[in-house]
Amino acid sequence: MAQNNEIPYKIYLEESEMPKAWYNVRADMKNKPAPLLNPGTLQPMTAEELSGVFCEELVKQELDNDTPFVEIPQEIRDFYKMYRPSPLVRAYCLEKQLGTPAKIYYKFEGNNTSGSHKLNSAIAQAYYAKNQGLKGVTTETGAGQWGTALSMACAYLGLDCKVYMVKVSYEQKPFRREVMRTYGAQVTPSPSETTEVGRRILAAHPGTTGSLGCAISEAVEDAVTHEGYRYVLGSVLNQVLLHQSVIGLETKIALDKYGIKPDMIIGCAGGGSNLGGLISPFMGEKLRGEADYDIVAVEPASCPSLTRGVYAYDFCDTGMVCPLAKMYTLGSNFIPAPNHAGGLRYHGMSSILSQLYHDGYMRAVSVPQTAVFEAAEQFARVEGILPAPESSHAIRVAIDEALKCKETGEEKTIVFGLTGTGYFDLVAYQKFHDGQMDDYIPTDDELKTYFAQLPKVE
Amino acid sequence: MAQNNEIPYKIYLEESEMPKAWYNVRADMKNKPAPLLNPGTLQPMTAEELSGVFCEELVKQELDNDTPFVEIPQEIRDFYKMYRPSPLVRAYCLEKQLGTPAKIYYKFEGNNTSGSHKLNSAIAQAYYAKNQGLKGVTTETGAGQWGTALSMACAYLGLDCKVYMVKVSYEQKPFRREVMRTYGAQVTPSPSETTEVGRRILAAHPGTTGSLGCAISEAVEDAVTHEGYRYVLGSVLNQVLLHQSVIGLETKIALDKYGIKPDMIIGCAGGGSNLGGLISPFMGEKLRGEADYDIVAVEPASCPSLTRGVYAYDFCDTGMVCPLAKMYTLGSNFIPAPNHAGGLRYHGMSSILSQLYHDGYMRAVSVPQTAVFEAAEQFARVEGILPAPESSHAIRVAIDEALKCKETGEEKTIVFGLTGTGYFDLVAYQKFHDGQMDDYIPTDDELKTYFAQLPKVE
Repeated sequence: MAQNNEIPYKIYLEESEMPKAWYNVRADMKNKPAPLLNPGTLQPMTAEELSGVFCEELVKQELDNDTPFVEIPQEIRDFYKMYRPSPLVRAYCLEKQLGTPAKIYYKFEGNNTSGSHKLNSAIAQAYYAKNQGLKGVTTETGAGQWGTALSMACAYLGLDCKVYMVKVSYEQKPFRREVMRTYGAQVTPSPSETTEVGRRILAAHPGTTGSLGCAISEAVEDAVTHEGYRYVLGSVLNQVLLHQSVIGLETKIALDKYGIKPDMIIGCAGGGSNLGGLISPFMGEKLRGEADYDIVAVEPASCPSLTRGVYAYDFCDTGMVCPLAKMYTLGSNFIPAPNHAGGLRYHGMSSILSQLYHDGYMRAVSVPQTAVFEAAEQFARVEGILPAPESSHAIRVAIDEALKCKETGEEKTIVFGLTGTGYFDLVAYQKFHDGQMDDYIPTDDELKTYFAQLPKVE
Repeated sequence: MAQNNEIPYKIYLEESEMPKAWYNVRADMKNKPAPLLNPGTLQPMTAEELSGVFCEELVKQELDNDTPFVEIPQEIRDFYKMYRPSPLVRAYCLEKQLGTPAKIYYKFEGNNTSGSHKLNSAIAQAYYAKNQGLKGVTTETGAGQWGTALSMACAYLGLDCKVYMVKVSYEQKPFRREVMRTYGAQVTPSPSETTEVGRRILAAHPGTTGSLGCAISEAVEDAVTHEGYRYVLGSVLNQVLLHQSVIGLETKIALDKYGIKPDMIIGCAGGGSNLGGLISPFMGEKLRGEADYDIVAVEPASCPSLTRGVYAYDFCDTGMVCPLAKMYTLGSNFIPAPNHAGGLRYHGMSSILSQLYHDGYMRAVSVPQTAVFEAAEQFARVEGILPAPESSHAIRVAIDEALKCKETGEEKTIVFGLTGTGYFDLVAYQKFHDGQMDDYIPTDDELKTYFAQLPKVE
């Protein structure tokens, strides 16, 4: 193994070293993720049914549990070259401040204008839509990262882009809309009066701050009721984890280059796009019995789908217009307290990650909001990057684990995903500085009422 | 020369290739920049006089017109490794969209939390202050980039940081303050009631939106009236251009690595920190007669110090508490229309660049605001980076020059400085989208009234 002093602060791959294919972790899973179900018949969704909502090529990727590697089309690889490879950073300064013997690395996905890893899948989904001759795509966005990413991808390819943005984020992040507008997207706060499902949700919950689940329902309705449009989604789906595997693949190539073997891999988890992408190739090794890693999902205590949810079939959206997915869920009606990690406010979790968690291949922890912002500020000051609240969940646990190493003397190698930047999260930072941050955590009784509303699928 | 298809989208240097010394372009200038004058005696400022305001090591750098290379202290080089090298990007997508035979490169300095190149000098100045055993530093900030950069550097080193922020930027960029607060800085909108000079300016110009010149006066007063504090400045000074030479040095190493020789080097110019840093090593070759380059400064038409100012001794600040510098100036009382490139709203220009411009080693153009934002949006959509309004001045001219090449068929190699990102400039983008952008340009008569107020120095 290379010595510490040979490892640079940032490892950048050469263009020639960048992955040419995505890795499909499903191919190595003995227990495949459960299929999506048709909400009417409760039978597995067929390719034909799915292609009313999604592009054909993406349907193929969604249903393919067997092909281990999927070639990345050249046009997508060219787009990746504009902002990738992302650096794998050795957190020398953080290690020093913590006084830990642990070695900490983070894969930083924030060095692009969308501010996060979301662009990796946005360009892929927009590319396939364009290739199919579509006019445009619709989507939802929580923190605004996915919507920004999609608007960038659509501007690049000349596609229409309609974004339903969770109302609480729309209000907390007034400038996100302006970035999307710079890229030519049409942005609507959700729930809205634009769609039937939006009107229904507003009538039932006047004054709601919205949720990803609501916004998904609206975007899907918009797509299926307009000729030449399809719906695209920034997380949860199998196809998204496939595209996001580029994060993990780059990370692994960079680590291998320097002979580094991580002990622990940590990622924040909302719908699972970043975590799933980051861990994929490592999880593949673990599934094939070639290596072992301690893989940790970190979620907000206010929206604890893995740590406190149930593993069951549930709707992906609040409006119940989408297929059902088997996943760890808090119930599709669950609307979390308005925390400031909009990208993690989703009631469910990727079916792939849910299955892997269920089968014991990874563990999960939940962290309260204030502790997350303490970690964010500490990290910003020593590592010079203002992290997104979402990403800061992983920072919190990475710091906690590094401090444990300080006590035990273990020289663990910790890798975590730093998914994005917090430039659009300064309302949240302000609340933190002003001591006005809310650490609300749902009670067991509250959760029970949501669980009771889960659809009955035997 | 390497073939186009061998040149990656982004050229990153290895850590081992990063510059170990800054380059001092003054060493190669036959006509040295004119010295700073004591505002009382009109005699050149001595090191002793300057060290009441600036740290000792920085005074030395400020006055040193002869040493060509100044070693970068290891601690600064370590800090640089956290966010440098910055990529030199080949603008393949922009070239394609323009249909130009020109080859366009940009040195992108925005991939750090301050959002610009300002961090290069901030860490250097903070380091020398710390080394001298000071408690803290005071400064001004226009767009907020310098203030953010300085607060990051101070947080890293554990120094106090007081920032006077031009009022128009403070109001247009509410979140900038929050970032600086995350890094522990104290931010005051300028002009303020905190200082004597601030109170004087407010009395004379009630309702003023402020200017860099005012904010400098306040920061200097704050430093000299508080024990253990010194003033630091993000632009204009010789020392700043010295530190910023890291931009040009990295650019040159990256170009040399691929055998690329630029024909034209373009940078936006406010006080000159980015332009001076970017062009330094190229200018050195030009001064030594080893190579020729078309070097272009781009300034806002609303604040045209090089293109319409006079070359004369003037105060660096509005409050006239600072030394006088010989420079192209619009007069220290000039307050530009509230344009959205806060970092370019300075009445004067670096003495080094003024001398080089005066001696015919570079040229200057000015561009109106709306045209700049058109270029910004075009660039954002094809290159995937949301540029700062300041940087977009250079983009405008790079695009114009590339379009000229399209007409003439010339395959010029154009390098420009992309100094930063526009995440905190979305009020400006919104005005642009809403068609409410102001293109006010000062009249000749207006300028004459300012020129008439210049200090009399023979």
